[in-house]
Amino acid sequence: MKLTVPVQDLLDGLRKVLSVVSSRSTIPILSNVLLTADEGSLSLTTTDLEVSIRTNMTAMVEEQGETTLPAKTLGQIVSSLPNGDVLLQTDENRTTTIDCNRAHFSIMGMNPSEFPRDGDFQEDLQLTLSRTYLGKTLRKISYATSSDQTRYILNGILLSVKEGSFTCVATDGRRLAMVEKSMAGAEPSMDGDAVLPAKAVTELQKLLDGEGDVTVRISDSRAAFEMAETSVTTKLVEGNYPNYRQVIPGSFERSVSIPRESFSEVLNRVSVVLADSGASVKFELESGLLELSASSSEIGEAKEPVDVSYEGEPLKISFNPGFLGAPLRFLDCDEMLLRFNDQYKPVVLLGDEGFLYVIMPMRN
Amino acid sequence: MKLTVPVQDLLDGLRKVLSVVSSRSTIPILSNVLLTADEGSLSLTTTDLEVSIRTNMTAMVEEQGETTLPAKTLGQIVSSLPNGDVLLQTDENRTTTIDCNRAHFSIMGMNPSEFPRDGDFQEDLQLTLSRTYLGKTLRKISYATSSDQTRYILNGILLSVKEGSFTCVATDGRRLAMVEKSMAGAEPSMDGDAVLPAKAVTELQKLLDGEGDVTVRISDSRAAFEMAETSVTTKLVEGNYPNYRQVIPGSFERSVSIPRESFSEVLNRVSVVLADSGASVKFELESGLLELSASSSEIGEAKEPVDVSYEGEPLKISFNPGFLGAPLRFLDCDEMLLRFNDQYKPVVLLGDEGFLYVIMPMRN
Repeated sequence: MKLTVPVQDLLDGLRKVLSVVSSRSTIPILSNVLLTADEGSLSLTTTDLEVSIRTNMTAMVEEQGETTLPAKTLGQIVSSLPNGDVLLQTDENRTTTIDCNRAHFSIMGMNPSEFPRDGDFQEDLQLTLSRTYLGKTLRKISYATSSDQTRYILNGILLSVKEGSFTCVATDGRRLAMVEKSMAGAEPSMDGDAVLPAKAVTELQKLLDGEGDVTVRISDSRAAFEMAETSVTTKLVEGNYPNYRQVIPGSFERSVSIPRESFSEVLNRVSVVLADSGASVKFELESGLLELSASSSEIGEAKEPVDVSYEGEPLKISFNPGFLGAPLRFLDCDEMLLRFNDQYKPVVLLGDEGFLYVIMPMRN
Repeated sequence: MKLTVPVQDLLDGLRKVLSVVSSRSTIPILSNVLLTADEGSLSLTTTDLEVSIRTNMTAMVEEQGETTLPAKTLGQIVSSLPNGDVLLQTDENRTTTIDCNRAHFSIMGMNPSEFPRDGDFQEDLQLTLSRTYLGKTLRKISYATSSDQTRYILNGILLSVKEGSFTCVATDGRRLAMVEKSMAGAEPSMDGDAVLPAKAVTELQKLLDGEGDVTVRISDSRAAFEMAETSVTTKLVEGNYPNYRQVIPGSFERSVSIPRESFSEVLNRVSVVLADSGASVKFELESGLLELSASSSEIGEAKEPVDVSYEGEPLKISFNPGFLGAPLRFLDCDEMLLRFNDQYKPVVLLGDEGFLYVIMPMRN
């Protein structure tokens, strides 16, 4: 392998693939990045056996071939190089020399034939979305996943295609976040579910920023997300995702329209006096006004009103501020809608188009 | 106590004093900030019994008085407030209400008479320096202190006034950094030494940024650093600082002038291939050229030359790159000077005026 590539391009590429590399893997080759030089292009691939990322860049390739190099070291070297071109050259002993200006490195690689490769797969379902849409959707729900390792399926995110709708869902069993979008022209034969592992969701959120589309391909056991230069493939979480539809209330007696940003600020402010993360903020809702208050014996009290659009009966209801506030910073809407029945039953928060959040009030 | 103060001023003040507050102190009052309202001003004071910080701001004081409030909570509240004025009012039960716009808080304080106060002290030595000079000086040497708790005096920084010179020194026993400045017109009666604890050095580095002067007052057991609005007082470390002058070589056989920034970059680059922090970078010095190289059996090799001004005999010498590179990013000079005798004896690095760094070569 012998090629020349601009330092900045190589660095950008490495930054895309480095985060799946574990420095503590018991399988040494997993701490390496696979470099593949084809005609006019260099691709970088990393994997942790669950999630794999591959990215391509234009390169001046003199000799095609491939090798692997320690990913973290290569990242440190390239980020330390001055601007300009870097020449990579691999000899028959799998030693790669790296030359840039007057800097010279000689780094030992591992046999690229040992590098685990996914191979391609036949998808059962394929859809194309804008990168921005999928990226924003993942941000709007991913905070609601569980981190409890004993409920592994809830650590992930459900992608579901059913009857012409594409739905993304996250829940930890106490609250649920989902974003739904109708897909014009989808065929019923395309229906299917897939649960993405948390690691894949984290990587996708970083990579989806940017222009253009992402093609999503899903089989029984794997999914691929293909963007212009970069693709992410992941194993899917096995098992059945819980029936999340049953926790969404079918009807509501009341509804209040609340300015999202100022409400979010007030919620954060009054929560400061709470001494533990399980405590609640009280809501007193009356015509045109919502007063938030909180108190703890350790610190003291706080209260502040928010002007809202509400015409119904006065109501007192309490929420955990962390759970209620979590989605607010990921939404774009000016006004959000809280829909509820009474102070005990599940409450639904609506905001951006297609977004729905279910949360239980607290009793106190 | 009753006063009104702009939110931003209160927040700026809290940021200056908050970092000495320990959230895990066994003495509850130490997690509080003392608020003192005098005519037209509010002062905030915090202490950890070793270091104390006090800062003043203009305030519209209706009722003078003082109280204490939980520092972290007050910081969270004030940083969550919208821009504008905040009204603080303390009642006879030591509850303080905080009102800003429509937000209302009621926070319990502790008795200000319990707050530990230093009282003033009579200095043996007083000097006035520019804040910038002292701040830069501390940055140029503080990385060289020891973090070994069993050599507590080396965790601190020596300030020494002797025969018309003001010297600041840090050493961990393996390298030494110092900055010296002659003080025109100083009287011999002012001679004296003081060792500042690490915590005081950390706080000072944050607070010294800015225009104007700092007055340093030192007694046997304490030091005060007084700036326009803010003052830091600290206990001094007891004991005798080692005789650092004896480790500075008196004469040198050779000297090389090296461009600081490009050398620093090359040193960082070649160090990437080192696998452990105790390893060394080799220097090969010949006429006009210094070649740095490094290698490890785990990763590989690196080498890169730097153009230097050198006319002497060729020399091979090795350094720990962390130790040699540490001062470089805090210096301002374009060219630095390495002065040495041979590959075994201590080497001196000179750069900015008054700066001196001593480091031992490594044998390998």
